[in-house]
Amino acid sequence: MKTTILIHCPDQVGIIHAVTGFIQARAGNVVYLDQHVDKEANVFFMRLETDFDQTIPNIEDLKFDFEKSLAIPYRMQWSLHLDNVKPKMGLFVSKYNHCLYDLLSRFHSGELQIEIPFIISNHDELKPIADQFKIPFYTIPISKENRQEAENRQLELLKSHEVDFIVLARYMQIIGSRLISAYPNKIINIHHSFLPAFAGAKPYHAAFKRGVKIIGATSHYVTEELDAGPIIEQDVATVSHAHSIEDFIAKGRDLEKIVLARAVRLHVHRKTMVYNNKTVIFA
Amino acid sequence: MKTTILIHCPDQVGIIHAVTGFIQARAGNVVYLDQHVDKEANVFFMRLETDFDQTIPNIEDLKFDFEKSLAIPYRMQWSLHLDNVKPKMGLFVSKYNHCLYDLLSRFHSGELQIEIPFIISNHDELKPIADQFKIPFYTIPISKENRQEAENRQLELLKSHEVDFIVLARYMQIIGSRLISAYPNKIINIHHSFLPAFAGAKPYHAAFKRGVKIIGATSHYVTEELDAGPIIEQDVATVSHAHSIEDFIAKGRDLEKIVLARAVRLHVHRKTMVYNNKTVIFA
Amino acid sequence: MKTTILIHCPDQVGIIHAVTGFIQARAGNVVYLDQHVDKEANVFFMRLETDFDQTIPNIEDLKFDFEKSLAIPYRMQWSLHLDNVKPKMGLFVSKYNHCLYDLLSRFHSGELQIEIPFIISNHDELKPIADQFKIPFYTIPISKENRQEAENRQLELLKSHEVDFIVLARYMQIIGSRLISAYPNKIINIHHSFLPAFAGAKPYHAAFKRGVKIIGATSHYVTEELDAGPIIEQDVATVSHAHSIEDFIAKGRDLEKIVLARAVRLHVHRKTMVYNNKTVIFA
Amino acid sequence: MKTTILIHCPDQVGIIHAVTGFIQARAGNVVYLDQHVDKEANVFFMRLETDFDQTIPNIEDLKFDFEKSLAIPYRMQWSLHLDNVKPKMGLFVSKYNHCLYDLLSRFHSGELQIEIPFIISNHDELKPIADQFKIPFYTIPISKENRQEAENRQLELLKSHEVDFIVLARYMQIIGSRLISAYPNKIINIHHSFLPAFAGAKPYHAAFKRGVKIIGATSHYVTEELDAGPIIEQDVATVSHAHSIEDFIAKGRDLEKIVLARAVRLHVHRKTMVYNNKTVIFA
Repeated sequence: MKTTILIHCPDQVGIIHAVTGFIQARAGNVVYLDQHVDKEANVFFMRLETDFDQTIPNIEDLKFDFEKSLAIPYRMQWSLHLDNVKPKMGLFVSKYNHCLYDLLSRFHSGELQIEIPFIISNHDELKPIADQFKIPFYTIPISKENRQEAENRQLELLKSHEVDFIVLARYMQIIGSRLISAYPNKIINIHHSFLPAFAGAKPYHAAFKRGVKIIGATSHYVTEELDAGPIIEQDVATVSHAHSIEDFIAKGRDLEKIVLARAVRLHVHRKTMVYNNKTVIFA
Repeated sequence: MKTTILIHCPDQVGIIHAVTGFIQARAGNVVYLDQHVDKEANVFFMRLETDFDQTIPNIEDLKFDFEKSLAIPYRMQWSLHLDNVKPKMGLFVSKYNHCLYDLLSRFHSGELQIEIPFIISNHDELKPIADQFKIPFYTIPISKENRQEAENRQLELLKSHEVDFIVLARYMQIIGSRLISAYPNKIINIHHSFLPAFAGAKPYHAAFKRGVKIIGATSHYVTEELDAGPIIEQDVATVSHAHSIEDFIAKGRDLEKIVLARAVRLHVHRKTMVYNNKTVIFA
Repeated sequence: MKTTILIHCPDQVGIIHAVTGFIQARAGNVVYLDQHVDKEANVFFMRLETDFDQTIPNIEDLKFDFEKSLAIPYRMQWSLHLDNVKPKMGLFVSKYNHCLYDLLSRFHSGELQIEIPFIISNHDELKPIADQFKIPFYTIPISKENRQEAENRQLELLKSHEVDFIVLARYMQIIGSRLISAYPNKIINIHHSFLPAFAGAKPYHAAFKRGVKIIGATSHYVTEELDAGPIIEQDVATVSHAHSIEDFIAKGRDLEKIVLARAVRLHVHRKTMVYNNKTVIFA
Repeated sequence: MKTTILIHCPDQVGIIHAVTGFIQARAGNVVYLDQHVDKEANVFFMRLETDFDQTIPNIEDLKFDFEKSLAIPYRMQWSLHLDNVKPKMGLFVSKYNHCLYDLLSRFHSGELQIEIPFIISNHDELKPIADQFKIPFYTIPISKENRQEAENRQLELLKSHEVDFIVLARYMQIIGSRLISAYPNKIINIHHSFLPAFAGAKPYHAAFKRGVKIIGATSHYVTEELDAGPIIEQDVATVSHAHSIEDFIAKGRDLEKIVLARAVRLHVHRKTMVYNNKTVIFA
């Protein structure tokens, strides 16, 4: 039984020794261990890949023991994931298709070990792509008037399909508080700028006007403040005076695809932890 | 006689043909031609490297003819530079030595075809490095009270040495209006962030706090608005949760050196033109 | 009428003036001009984007005049392309789908101004993707025995559909001499290494064994010598000891897609010229 | 007492638990732990930063215990370094000054926690720079005839100054077997190409001839086979048809400086381990 364990807690002497001892005592082997200390915040982070013997009786017993003998005394926030369980990803899109195509072709090629129960969009332009890949597509239009009701429908779909995390693949709508609090640090957005520069609308236009020589894209977890959540991944591309806004946008599309796909992969592999509005990425 | 000619003017039909014809008619050869049109602003930019026959009588006559037969009819802003004249660079520093060392060692190796008549600093910590490289060093302390007077001394030094352009190699003082208007688009600053993100003081601290995954450095021409002048060059480096602020600063030093040196080289080779607070860089 | 003109010839005084004059005399405007001189080989290269008045009588007359008054006296190799004619791309694949998906989704989004009359493969695994995008798919199996015959079928298809250039999107077969000579500098391959390192088979395995810290991908025109043709575009990604061969391959897929797509775009926009087994790229 | 401990051994269950237990039992705290398993070779690697209480009686006792209770049973190769001991770096140069200037200015700024007892060169051109930084400079000319004798002098200097590791800062001579075996995985070279491409002499010329679009630099430990030792760090820069060989060389200088400095820093911080002609870099 392969598992991934994520832990963070106040930094203390002996945590690694205690955790590795716990695993060893249960016929488990530590396959990989990554560890980090945020010295400013005095917080300890650890990610373990473990391999437990078949004889291990019960996952719930294991969790119970972990909680009692480690999590409580060390005041840990922790989670344990079975590697053979594929997380379910809710996919939100609007009208741009490049991130959608990219994610679906990766999914289709077996690159992403996930399930995609459905795609939600506020428009129906991208339905043919969902059809192409045989994934259910729900059009939930958004207007000032129906925002609450639309959110209700989104939440219902997410709940009924037991979605684990959400990816906004250039979904051009603000996410409401109810969704954010239902999926804390579990909604991944791709913003088409090198944040914190050019937050908000039309970042390529702003970058063009400012005359930057490098553009970027940023994937981050969604929080209440727009484009201000914990950054997961960023990448950049050089531009010059010879590039038009259209060139920025075209170059940016390639960045957005890559940066979003990397963030999804990191999240799916349980390689991200969030603390103080920042991420620890055990890449 | 080798020259570099820089031109910008309203975009019109036939400019390239007219300018190349002018040069050819004076026994000149176009060695390299770079051209750009800013379609939004409807401005044409051109940079020419030319080689004139020895028989060319007089550079002033040439300039007079150019003005009359091309610049006036086409409403050009233009300049002609003799490639064998080394521009004089005024170097401003405070206490950080990495950019200073980098520029001086490039200068000393013959990489930069310039003269450095002096170094100005508001502190005397870096005088030993100036001595090491045998360059006059003037300490001009800056305080709230003496700002005007200090600027007078700076301007005097710049004027008496006929300085062509100024480089702020991590000079930690605001440049006053008189210097800026005396050296329009001729004062190069290095800012230790990926502008426009983290303008102003302590950008590495701000970047660390925000949890970015990439840091940057930006060289730009100094204008009245702080850190908002035309960008010449930018570069970035990846960082992670494992890096402390000190690591950001150390990584950043390498960026700053490279990005400032590239900007100086571009400026010295007359490869930069400024329009609408943006640069055209014929790299 | 918008055209792109590509020229190369022995370097001589006055070429730019002569060509811009020719265009102006025919009510044409030079929209963009890029120029390069290979000083070692003494060869002049130029790319012009032009806009001719509607009144221009006849494209064939224009070409005839160009040949007579410019190409012959200056000994030019040249070509003139109408920007509204979409080039036809022949697409060859084997079993890997990532480059195929990437190119087809770009094509489908309108990012590539081309036609794709068909896809050829030596296997039928990828037929469902061709079907998904509604592009004819021909399976032409290759074996030692039928190589000649298979090439005949390929050539027939290419000819009957008037294919302009060929893209090998991870087509895992050697291209024969007849195809290469029928499409000189018109067959684009993607090689999954940073050439010239790791030419030939299994480059990721070789890179892993050597312990490199950066991997790459290279797109190039196919010539008789394997992986030795003119390089169009390269890009790289960092790797570390923590990455397995499978990680190299996964990272490499993203490089391959991007580097191949960029090469196709450059070729389609007539921004590539070949000389001495090297490319001039007017990006 | 702060120490860094490096370990590699056959991969076995329980190593992390055993080592962290050993440290804890001696009033030590694990400040940082990095770990890697080479699954192909079945080798376990670990790097620990530890902080021992002042009461720890004796470093030699600690080492003796470690050997007996951990290293022997687990068949470990290991080393323990006191963080307050500055390693001594022997610096070899020839005629190029850019890496020398870069390393010395970093050293002078306190960026590198090392001692530089001397600089050795086969030429005397760079002596003025050594003088500038007040570091002893020994000219040891190399010719076919005196190679043995020159090596003797080098070895004497290295031995009498108790040099810990050697940096070849563009030292243009082959290093003999005696030096290599006296400093196994302790001689750092900078090669001016993206290895394994363009090993040997004149890599920039070879890269130019091949028409690559990216050039690189590689720092590696010196082994008997030329330019084939374990790679520590690599970086790259884009080039185009517009760049001459001189431009390649100038761009390359900046790469060489950075890539060599990074390798020196990694080595000094005990962040490199070598196995199977590859490095594990705990960056």
